[in-house]
Amino acid sequence: MNAEIIAVGSELLLGQIVNTNARFISQELAGLGIDVYYHTVVGDNPDRLKAAITIAEKRSDIIIFTGGLGPTKDDLTKETIARHLGKQLVMDDAALDGIKLYFKRTNREMTENNKKQALILEGSHVLPNDHGMAPGMLLKKDAHLYMLLPGPPKEMEPMFSKYGKQALSAEADSSSILVSRVLRFFGIGEAALETEIIDLIEAQSNPTIAPLAGDGEVTLRLTAKHSDEAVAVSMLDEVEKKIGERVGEFLYGYDQSSLLNELTKLLKEKKLTITAAESLTGGMFQQNITSISGASSVFKGGIVCYSNEVKHQILQVKQETLEKYGAVSEQCAQELAENAGRIFGTDIGISFTGVAGPEELEGKPVGTVYIGISIKGKQTVVKKLTLSGTRTANRGRAVKYGCYYILKMLRTAQNA
Amino acid sequence: MNAEIIAVGSELLLGQIVNTNARFISQELAGLGIDVYYHTVVGDNPDRLKAAITIAEKRSDIIIFTGGLGPTKDDLTKETIARHLGKQLVMDDAALDGIKLYFKRTNREMTENNKKQALILEGSHVLPNDHGMAPGMLLKKDAHLYMLLPGPPKEMEPMFSKYGKQALSAEADSSSILVSRVLRFFGIGEAALETEIIDLIEAQSNPTIAPLAGDGEVTLRLTAKHSDEAVAVSMLDEVEKKIGERVGEFLYGYDQSSLLNELTKLLKEKKLTITAAESLTGGMFQQNITSISGASSVFKGGIVCYSNEVKHQILQVKQETLEKYGAVSEQCAQELAENAGRIFGTDIGISFTGVAGPEELEGKPVGTVYIGISIKGKQTVVKKLTLSGTRTANRGRAVKYGCYYILKMLRTAQNA
Repeated sequence: MNAEIIAVGSELLLGQIVNTNARFISQELAGLGIDVYYHTVVGDNPDRLKAAITIAEKRSDIIIFTGGLGPTKDDLTKETIARHLGKQLVMDDAALDGIKLYFKRTNREMTENNKKQALILEGSHVLPNDHGMAPGMLLKKDAHLYMLLPGPPKEMEPMFSKYGKQALSAEADSSSILVSRVLRFFGIGEAALETEIIDLIEAQSNPTIAPLAGDGEVTLRLTAKHSDEAVAVSMLDEVEKKIGERVGEFLYGYDQSSLLNELTKLLKEKKLTITAAESLTGGMFQQNITSISGASSVFKGGIVCYSNEVKHQILQVKQETLEKYGAVSEQCAQELAENAGRIFGTDIGISFTGVAGPEELEGKPVGTVYIGISIKGKQTVVKKLTLSGTRTANRGRAVKYGCYYILKMLRTAQNA
Repeated sequence: MNAEIIAVGSELLLGQIVNTNARFISQELAGLGIDVYYHTVVGDNPDRLKAAITIAEKRSDIIIFTGGLGPTKDDLTKETIARHLGKQLVMDDAALDGIKLYFKRTNREMTENNKKQALILEGSHVLPNDHGMAPGMLLKKDAHLYMLLPGPPKEMEPMFSKYGKQALSAEADSSSILVSRVLRFFGIGEAALETEIIDLIEAQSNPTIAPLAGDGEVTLRLTAKHSDEAVAVSMLDEVEKKIGERVGEFLYGYDQSSLLNELTKLLKEKKLTITAAESLTGGMFQQNITSISGASSVFKGGIVCYSNEVKHQILQVKQETLEKYGAVSEQCAQELAENAGRIFGTDIGISFTGVAGPEELEGKPVGTVYIGISIKGKQTVVKKLTLSGTRTANRGRAVKYGCYYILKMLRTAQNA
């Protein structure tokens, strides 16, 4: 089984947006063991879309469309597919109810053109849209599977993960089961990790080991194929053990986890609370920790201390510290972490101060970061980083390092 | 003249990277007045690449390839094109000198396989690579133009901007110039906006009007074509004026701007400072505002007040308010905004409190949000939202609404 992803939308051809949908679906299909041979992008033009479908049918078993399911006139994906396949579009009552509910919930008036979104290809399996209005569809005709997904990633991604994958698996060849596990590493580069385990990567064909770098993290996706799921799992266990012997100290989690998820989980287990004083990260640590549902048991609040006045007046950093060492200093990071913990009455206080860029600050170069970590009953630790990314990347990297350091400190304490 | 962009690389089909090259080249071609009808992605496989070229030749005048020009075995773009077109690959001395220089500059030993990068299609116009080794090429054969560009964006983008565009313009018909303008709207849905201006969309072919929704915003891209750039611009002005008469109250900015950019710009102009007290948004507003370089002149710091203790103890919300109305209430939002402004000594205080989800809170349903806006010398305003997205979407949407409300209040004051 091989697949082609057809993204429909003139905004892609005008370069207004990037085709992240093709990336997302490709990753997911790789996990299902389905090869993707082509991505195609075509505009909101029925003739060219029809031509693209005809080409795809000659070379691909599964054709996945994204975009063009909305209420407006230039949304024409399902209309074009219906004409091409000789299928009717029929009103789906459940989808229509969903759209009505959506408008009711958001207190808005439903305009007539929104009804169009509840039309589906006759005989198709409907994929509910939990985050928007237009439902997705899966249709089998002759030798092909056609899947239609909405364009906005925040609707498409959860729809595909929750409903699309399962529907595809059921239709696709499933005599052997594919089991995947993602190992997540932090604090080691992709090249260094690969060097450590290159012999394992080269020797293995089942399970396969695929490294992937991104955002300062490295992940390894292990995928085992076997008719018996339990055997596939034990094949994964075995190769994970070998990898762990080489680079286990950098392994922090699995699959969809993140440093923040691991940190929140560990804090909950240990019944510890945390606060933050953020200068260069401007609230990113706190925004990330509160993006996790249920964070309120470990996080009560914190401060964004962008200016020196706030560091001094609200967070009580000594004027002398700011004058003598500057805000971007080990001393300031230490006081920020300790004072934040005291003011908010938490077990842990973390601080971030540094130079995000693009310009240097206090004569310190872009990428200089100090992270203070104050844990009740322990000596405060300040870590210095020298980062080399853009402003946004440096801020994000600093937050990840902060989580990583706390995790390491708490886990080491646990094992000691 | 129309164009197709073919990106070559299995890493794209595996979802390891996103095809940002297609976006970049599309934007640049739009500026040259060349329509892009298709993007194609194909793996490092000579047969499938050849098939993709054959398809492209049937439907596109200009075919632009990215990727597969490197030194390794799976880099086979130019080899495949050479075979397909019946052309020889010949050594380009200038390119070879460039590669030798590159190794010398980076203090590395040049391995034999790197020479392969200096091979070019006979008769092609060479595009120098100022940021890497593999040169680009432009070749005219029969009715087609073939352009080959390297895959890494940091090499491809400057090469295309500096050499590729000029070479294409010279070859392509450039009698008419294309000028685009993006209008950015907030507070109105895509369908509602389209309903308001459907007659304009249907009547216009030059300029064209293309709506695009995403992340709670709607944009309209206006594109005018004319041999005289000044005339094209005035054509845009005219249609923008017509649109403005219908939905101008929702128009907040242009092109690559964002609500936060507009807000920061306006605060700077008016020399106003702002702080935030964030409950459901957990620091997102502050993180966003500090993501803009130079935000320090308008933002000094703020509070994340996730728990009621922090709202009461640090932000001085009355215990009575929390008990009688709850944290998710108009009253609490008002006190948070006013007190934050007072504590941080700023002109504006904004507060966000609500139920991000997935569970309801204080008996209030998910999506209930109160945004308090306290502007010095004015009555505090509290806006209530009823959102219907995921936890993350609701938080993001709340931040955007917050920016939008402040913008409206300040702009209205300006015009009054």
